[in-house]
Amino acid sequence: MSTPQDLIPVISSIQDPALAARLQHRIDRKTKPLGSLGRLEDLMLRLGLILGTETPQLVEPQMMVFAADHGIAAHGVSAFPPEVTWQMVENFLSGGAAVSVLARQHGLTLSVVDAGVKHQFQPRAGLLIAKIAMGTADMLAGPAMTPDQCSTAVAAGKTLLQKRPGNVLLLGEMGIGNTSAAALLLARLGGYALVDCVGRGTGLDDAQLKHKLDVLTRALNRHPRATDPLAALAALGGLEIAMMVGAVLQAALERRIIVVDGFITGAAVLVAARLQPAVLERCVFAHRSQEVGHRLMLESLKAQPLLDLGLRLGEGSGAALAWPLLGSACQVLSDMASFDSAGVSDQR
Amino acid sequence: MSTPQDLIPVISSIQDPALAARLQHRIDRKTKPLGSLGRLEDLMLRLGLILGTETPQLVEPQMMVFAADHGIAAHGVSAFPPEVTWQMVENFLSGGAAVSVLARQHGLTLSVVDAGVKHQFQPRAGLLIAKIAMGTADMLAGPAMTPDQCSTAVAAGKTLLQKRPGNVLLLGEMGIGNTSAAALLLARLGGYALVDCVGRGTGLDDAQLKHKLDVLTRALNRHPRATDPLAALAALGGLEIAMMVGAVLQAALERRIIVVDGFITGAAVLVAARLQPAVLERCVFAHRSQEVGHRLMLESLKAQPLLDLGLRLGEGSGAALAWPLLGSACQVLSDMASFDSAGVSDQR
Repeated sequence: MSTPQDLIPVISSIQDPALAARLQHRIDRKTKPLGSLGRLEDLMLRLGLILGTETPQLVEPQMMVFAADHGIAAHGVSAFPPEVTWQMVENFLSGGAAVSVLARQHGLTLSVVDAGVKHQFQPRAGLLIAKIAMGTADMLAGPAMTPDQCSTAVAAGKTLLQKRPGNVLLLGEMGIGNTSAAALLLARLGGYALVDCVGRGTGLDDAQLKHKLDVLTRALNRHPRATDPLAALAALGGLEIAMMVGAVLQAALERRIIVVDGFITGAAVLVAARLQPAVLERCVFAHRSQEVGHRLMLESLKAQPLLDLGLRLGEGSGAALAWPLLGSACQVLSDMASFDSAGVSDQR
Repeated sequence: MSTPQDLIPVISSIQDPALAARLQHRIDRKTKPLGSLGRLEDLMLRLGLILGTETPQLVEPQMMVFAADHGIAAHGVSAFPPEVTWQMVENFLSGGAAVSVLARQHGLTLSVVDAGVKHQFQPRAGLLIAKIAMGTADMLAGPAMTPDQCSTAVAAGKTLLQKRPGNVLLLGEMGIGNTSAAALLLARLGGYALVDCVGRGTGLDDAQLKHKLDVLTRALNRHPRATDPLAALAALGGLEIAMMVGAVLQAALERRIIVVDGFITGAAVLVAARLQPAVLERCVFAHRSQEVGHRLMLESLKAQPLLDLGLRLGEGSGAALAWPLLGSACQVLSDMASFDSAGVSDQR
């Protein structure tokens, strides 16, 4: 087992005022009114700073969908039965899920990571088997993961990411029950009231939502001492979330762009950012989810997402939908003319 | 000169409850929680209804950027000098403008229409010369266009569109002074106070904004009887706006998808919709602009745009940025698996 010091790399800040000034000048001299590309200009600045260049280029983007099962699902906190986790992994791999379709549309390499699905998969292309356990334990009875399982999952996420090519990680996930884990991590690490963090997930009705809140209240109270990020992750998290924490840390260390999808991937980023705050400098938040806790999640991450389309599917679907905007930011930075090069009169 | 009856085609409703029900069923059986793709599902429904099929496909999308000059620009209502109109046309054609870069990124055919630019262009590929005049007249002295110029511009827009292939029109525009024309049309046809319609355009400061409002107040008061859509268009509009009205009507008649960019293209759609309300059933609104009047414009069009990125560039840049979402909607509709086809358990 790794010690926390081995496990958690030091992520240093990529703030670079000189490069930021050069990027801003480049943006401002483009043939357009100052600031008129709005949030796309912020995105240009961010991508330039992450990749350390005035002309960032996106190379071999990796959509990684981390999947695992959750002991808490046995308590009826989801609208869907637990076997949907492995069934959806099959759907991702056969190309029929939303994220499969969107990844194909945009030329994203899709890998599905079995971080702890309660199912034995046949090995095949696109499936990365890194199973830590057949799902987490029941967190009403004890921690969801042992400290060892949690560290092993984080370490596996680092290794998996390290082996992927390219300079962009798009985060996706699948796991029946995982809005529960994400809500608990948000409440614990963000310091919010649980009731504001718990939502309808894949579609609970009012009575089911109340039941979910009751179950999660008991879960949170069961682990009062799990307050530091890794302890909270082990007690309240999920194997796919822990593995994403590792992938996020490694991606940040390698200065890759991290495109964050919705509520569950946000929980992984929240844990990683509590461990190493400069992780956030590498993140692009794809969208504002309809899942109720996501507002607070974004607030706690000081994140301004690109899209606001009422999505609540997960899988990485929001990250894939936002993806072309990153390409647009890079293309505009590199290919758009300046007032000088185009011979266009400037503002008077 | 055409009479209004010849000029304005009758646009009938494309409401089709049976097709809408089939589309909704198809969307609901996809392997995802009900409604979890949010606004993308509304978009699927709309594209299916416009093209009259459960599996809409986008064919040869045409980005048409309509350009013209404005007599009102002589009164200092813009932060940029009038010659920027023709200079930007050159920039569009040489590939250096934002819309050029974005059209290239997404494989959109870009055509620039000279509807009335105060400049003689050399004919070349990508430039459609349909000049009605060297810009509009000074609307403080008389109508911006004669009725004949206005009708001719609308008719030219219809003909131009008719000659373009494909089933999607993306609207773009260029014209120093054209936020003034758009604000006046919004105030007159939307029934709003002018002060709520007039914004900073390409970047006016507070004093310049006040001056713009003064000038536009005089312009609006100069033409009290120009209340019907075509009269308002002639008195207060612009040649590129009038030509877009024709293009929009023709596109609607042909049941093409119309992707509306921002404030100025919105003004053209507003005029067209006041003439033939069913035009709106064919429209997809790309984004919420930062130009202050756009909020009321969207309200008057009952439009929910896809993006909200603080853009205020025009050119069609917002339409181009939103474009991949239309492709995603179509791909998901056609390629995503259903619960039955994928063998995934449904909600319990």
